[in-house]
Amino acid sequence: MDIYDIIIIGGGPGGYNAALAGARAGLKVLLAEKEKLGGVCLNEGCIPSKALLYSAKLLEGASQGEKYGLTVEKASLDQGKVIDRKNKVVRTLVSGVKGALKEAGVTLVMGQGQLLPKTGTAFAVQVGERQYLGKNVILAAGSRPLMPPIPGLRQQREKGFVLTSKELLDLRQIPASLVVIGGGVIGLEMACYYNAAGAQVTVIEMLPKIGGQIDGDIAALLQKNLEKKGIVFHLAAKVTEITEGAVVYEKEGQTHSLPAGQVLASLGREPNTADLGLTELGVAMAGKAVETDDWLRTNIPGLYAVGDINGKVMLAHTAYWEGERAVKDILGHEKQTGEAASGAEVSTSAVADYSMIPGVIYTNPEVAWVGKSGDLTADQEQKFYTQTISMRFSGRYLAENEGGDGICKLVLDKEDQSLAGVHMIANHSAEAITAAAILVYRKAAVQEIKDYIFPHPSLSEILREGIHSLK
Amino acid sequence: MDIYDIIIIGGGPGGYNAALAGARAGLKVLLAEKEKLGGVCLNEGCIPSKALLYSAKLLEGASQGEKYGLTVEKASLDQGKVIDRKNKVVRTLVSGVKGALKEAGVTLVMGQGQLLPKTGTAFAVQVGERQYLGKNVILAAGSRPLMPPIPGLRQQREKGFVLTSKELLDLRQIPASLVVIGGGVIGLEMACYYNAAGAQVTVIEMLPKIGGQIDGDIAALLQKNLEKKGIVFHLAAKVTEITEGAVVYEKEGQTHSLPAGQVLASLGREPNTADLGLTELGVAMAGKAVETDDWLRTNIPGLYAVGDINGKVMLAHTAYWEGERAVKDILGHEKQTGEAASGAEVSTSAVADYSMIPGVIYTNPEVAWVGKSGDLTADQEQKFYTQTISMRFSGRYLAENEGGDGICKLVLDKEDQSLAGVHMIANHSAEAITAAAILVYRKAAVQEIKDYIFPHPSLSEILREGIHSLK
Repeated sequence: MDIYDIIIIGGGPGGYNAALAGARAGLKVLLAEKEKLGGVCLNEGCIPSKALLYSAKLLEGASQGEKYGLTVEKASLDQGKVIDRKNKVVRTLVSGVKGALKEAGVTLVMGQGQLLPKTGTAFAVQVGERQYLGKNVILAAGSRPLMPPIPGLRQQREKGFVLTSKELLDLRQIPASLVVIGGGVIGLEMACYYNAAGAQVTVIEMLPKIGGQIDGDIAALLQKNLEKKGIVFHLAAKVTEITEGAVVYEKEGQTHSLPAGQVLASLGREPNTADLGLTELGVAMAGKAVETDDWLRTNIPGLYAVGDINGKVMLAHTAYWEGERAVKDILGHEKQTGEAASGAEVSTSAVADYSMIPGVIYTNPEVAWVGKSGDLTADQEQKFYTQTISMRFSGRYLAENEGGDGICKLVLDKEDQSLAGVHMIANHSAEAITAAAILVYRKAAVQEIKDYIFPHPSLSEILREGIHSLK
Repeated sequence: MDIYDIIIIGGGPGGYNAALAGARAGLKVLLAEKEKLGGVCLNEGCIPSKALLYSAKLLEGASQGEKYGLTVEKASLDQGKVIDRKNKVVRTLVSGVKGALKEAGVTLVMGQGQLLPKTGTAFAVQVGERQYLGKNVILAAGSRPLMPPIPGLRQQREKGFVLTSKELLDLRQIPASLVVIGGGVIGLEMACYYNAAGAQVTVIEMLPKIGGQIDGDIAALLQKNLEKKGIVFHLAAKVTEITEGAVVYEKEGQTHSLPAGQVLASLGREPNTADLGLTELGVAMAGKAVETDDWLRTNIPGLYAVGDINGKVMLAHTAYWEGERAVKDILGHEKQTGEAASGAEVSTSAVADYSMIPGVIYTNPEVAWVGKSGDLTADQEQKFYTQTISMRFSGRYLAENEGGDGICKLVLDKEDQSLAGVHMIANHSAEAITAAAILVYRKAAVQEIKDYIFPHPSLSEILREGIHSLK
């Protein structure tokens, strides 16, 4: 039997990217995907939601274009067409991934991969009827929506009253009203789309702010912007029960029952660790996730876990990055530090710094961030300070955002005047944050940043403006 | 009489930014502006055109939204409202510049500044009735549209048949047809707006390609995209006369007369060097421009020239950058190299490398570029190679550009595998190019770029995809 250099379980961003990286480096790679190549990201997450949100943005542009001199009669979305187009986009990307894997020489097998007890030095992985042997295995089985034990949740989900984002991204009829439980990234993006598409949307969030870990000032601005569009927020509110047609929640000691046409449960996600043979193999866990180190190694030599399954940062681009790190480790990279190509000043860091991972919420307006949080604790204020400037200092923002109230918040290291974090709220900040992410990754000093030339007019110039506004 | 550390003639991007940089560094600065603070960029260039183009983009989004599931009845632009809003945006930005100058302590005087013959060590500058003395003077008088001696051009301009971009940006009625002479940046942006707004637009360009210095493949794609919208191009065509109501041009030996409702002359720009007292002072010229070195110094010690007046790269962000370089020189920066703030790895380079300046054409789709040209000569092919990938490898591009044919072309240095140039055609590439500009400025190696984390999904990810696609 052939022995693969790497067997990868799961064909989402972490898995397929690791497969490509391994195969392109000359390794013999097998990828097992149980259902849909591309995983949650391509099939029921990042990509489909962006397709929907772009349709919503066009609709908002048309129906609120008056302040830009645009006159439009009756603008509306045809939900069926929106969904059909989204499916086409997904098919194109999935077939692109398939083509790339084939071109790179990756063996793709469809079926749930399961680790078998080790008998020799190689790992044995069962996929369907067949067994495969691999010197290394990368677990990339992803995650699934978390369903906490809220009374009625399970029953109402079975009845189709409570949906997950997956089903919501396939709804061919806009419900009259949508109650979103959980005001994190997924909840906010879906709230934004369904609000634009015509549903009355209410978001119930347990924390006193929306957007999870995002900057407090930006969370408040985002909430204000979404409220202006008609989305209602109940914060610091706890859902206690889902009944037939309503969501019951407690806030400030009061119990409320909120009728809903449809409910979205976006209460976070949990790693897919079942049916992989992990317990039998003695794989160490960190709570519900597979425990990994800085190189994504589990406690079993040769066994790696990348992407959502390790529970670190559940984002597609984190999974890409982790997949590449795992492959680098397999390639013995860590022994080769210093042998990077000539000209490279940044060699892959032995420590995986997850604060360097940019994040985006694709609401309208968009929110993007990278690095150190702008909500400094008293302790952090010893070492860092923040500078906030209005996005209106960007000429392009002003030209494209009538009445916009976006901001950019920089976090700076007092000691060496280096850029430690950037937080933005403005459309296209997902693009502007890329430059910020490079600068933060490099711990670029204010003086260095002043030397870079930003195109004018651009949203990205706000970084330049912010840096120059420092006293 | 007070002696200023710097007197700046011209309040456009180069001038006002130099004023801010000087004043913020503690220098005593006077800024003389003859007409409108903010110069061409804010008042009749970059900013107003972007305001108009955004309205056009909303209209195109609305009227061509069907493929995204959007249904719209009758969409149109109210040109009067578009212009009114544009004026509001300009007023806001001009008043922002005014406020910033005031806050920084810059003395602002309105009037044409003119250098007087030197009598002592200081420069004397006449502004209106008054004279001011300055240890240093920065010329930042900008440029004006070039009007070559084409028969009939001057007369038809006086009659209001031929316009410049300045007047076109204030037109309150859309002409039935517009003939654009010159398919460079300004010509293309105006063609794009007036086409969207309903005019029949024809572009006549002397060169065999549009977009001036932009990459050849991208120029061809841009032309194809604009032709699809109905813009007609006559390339390698020479305008020989402007008559009453028509533009006469020669192409392949044939003479054609093209009737037009209105004509835009966008034939380049020339430096504003008159009325500044340059000849009397013996300022050396390079053709029509003021000659300057890498620190924007003229041949007269203490006299600098930044922005369009030195004729190097006529872009607002070039002017910003040059203004800062001139002030650094005045601050004696060049003697302090090596004393950059701790953490800064890039210190201001003694050589001004103009190839590091990004450029953008804000058509729909947008074009952006930085660094080495992708049109390699046989000689350059010894040292560089290019890699072109479809923008459709970016999930966000695919989700937001139905049927899009954008590309990203990377130019790489064979010797050290560093990134030497990036050329893109896709909306929002003005934002994505910012990250590319930082990487190209740093001559970042492929290995370094692989370590950066790009947010997913984003257009900027195309850089990552391009780098990973290299064999």
